[in-house]
Amino acid sequence: MIDNLVKIIRQTIEVSETECELIAMLFTEKVYKKGSFFLSEGDVCKQVGFISRGLVRYYINDEGENKTYYFSQENEFVCNYESFVPQQPSKQNIQALEDCTMQVISYNDLQTFYKKLKNGDRFGRLVIEQAFIKTLQELNSFYTDPADIRYQKFMAQHPDLQQRIPQYYIASFVGVKPQSLSRIRKKYLLNN
Amino acid sequence: MIDNLVKIIRQTIEVSETECELIAMLFTEKVYKKGSFFLSEGDVCKQVGFISRGLVRYYINDEGENKTYYFSQENEFVCNYESFVPQQPSKQNIQALEDCTMQVISYNDLQTFYKKLKNGDRFGRLVIEQAFIKTLQELNSFYTDPADIRYQKFMAQHPDLQQRIPQYYIASFVGVKPQSLSRIRKKYLLNN
Repeated sequence: MIDNLVKIIRQTIEVSETECELIAMLFTEKVYKKGSFFLSEGDVCKQVGFISRGLVRYYINDEGENKTYYFSQENEFVCNYESFVPQQPSKQNIQALEDCTMQVISYNDLQTFYKKLKNGDRFGRLVIEQAFIKTLQELNSFYTDPADIRYQKFMAQHPDLQQRIPQYYIASFVGVKPQSLSRIRKKYLLNN
Repeated sequence: MIDNLVKIIRQTIEVSETECELIAMLFTEKVYKKGSFFLSEGDVCKQVGFISRGLVRYYINDEGENKTYYFSQENEFVCNYESFVPQQPSKQNIQALEDCTMQVISYNDLQTFYKKLKNGDRFGRLVIEQAFIKTLQELNSFYTDPADIRYQKFMAQHPDLQQRIPQYYIASFVGVKPQSLSRIRKKYLLNN
């Protein structure tokens, strides 16, 4: 499973064989059962995960209502940087929507990764730049895009997830009641 | 003026004398007159600035209304990363609120900075991590905090700016009409 992670890292930076061994030592494989939490509101996010298998959703509690605002799947990193970087309690939850297998690295081990790999900081900078941009886009979309645009973006970003995610989570992501989703989906299918 | 920038960089990473010379070559001093734009909506953000003197505001056009959502001042970096990182047109504006002197680095020269400085990528990672966290906090506050909390945060982050920024920009940042700001300010002064 670690091979997949190394492959992804090698798409961005050069990694020597010795560094490969170090990566294998720094990351630990963890399994999150469907419904369990990678991160719960109020806890400090102490790790970054790389999804080998499975799917998670990110959500916030907004006055009693769970609002899903993001999904991550295979070959993607999972982290709430807003909690992880300053090591402060999270306002967000990250929950497994399927049984997940992840390669996980702790906060301290990630500092070792940055320090010991020749291009560790370069990799960290590029990953966080992309996470930054993606998060800004998601957050702006969450607050300003109408439901049909939200659905279009969901389908563009995760064309394969429509079948894997319960409809009420997709409705929550889009920002409508589950009963309104089929109308939006119908409109989308007619136009695409 | 470059000395100040080097001093700030040295608070985060070690910089050799040769690297100092390189930094002085990569950054250019630019002056932005009060009211002029560091970045205009629709343009690609092609540079990062470091403010030696002066003050800028960040704002968006929201259906004809200018909404100020951020201020930067002396010893801070200025950039719209959402436009800068992917080199895509900006939805935001960055405007000088006073005559500003900045040390400015272009996108390409920043890549050289990352590559040639021993700890260039490390500095870049740490700066963007902080920018990421700050932006998330600002954006969440912008969308969810009530006006009095916004004012409290403004005063905590920029205790010296109350006198330097026109009241209508502070009102815009707080999210109220200028005439409501004095009521919020009075309440703040009574409680602090």
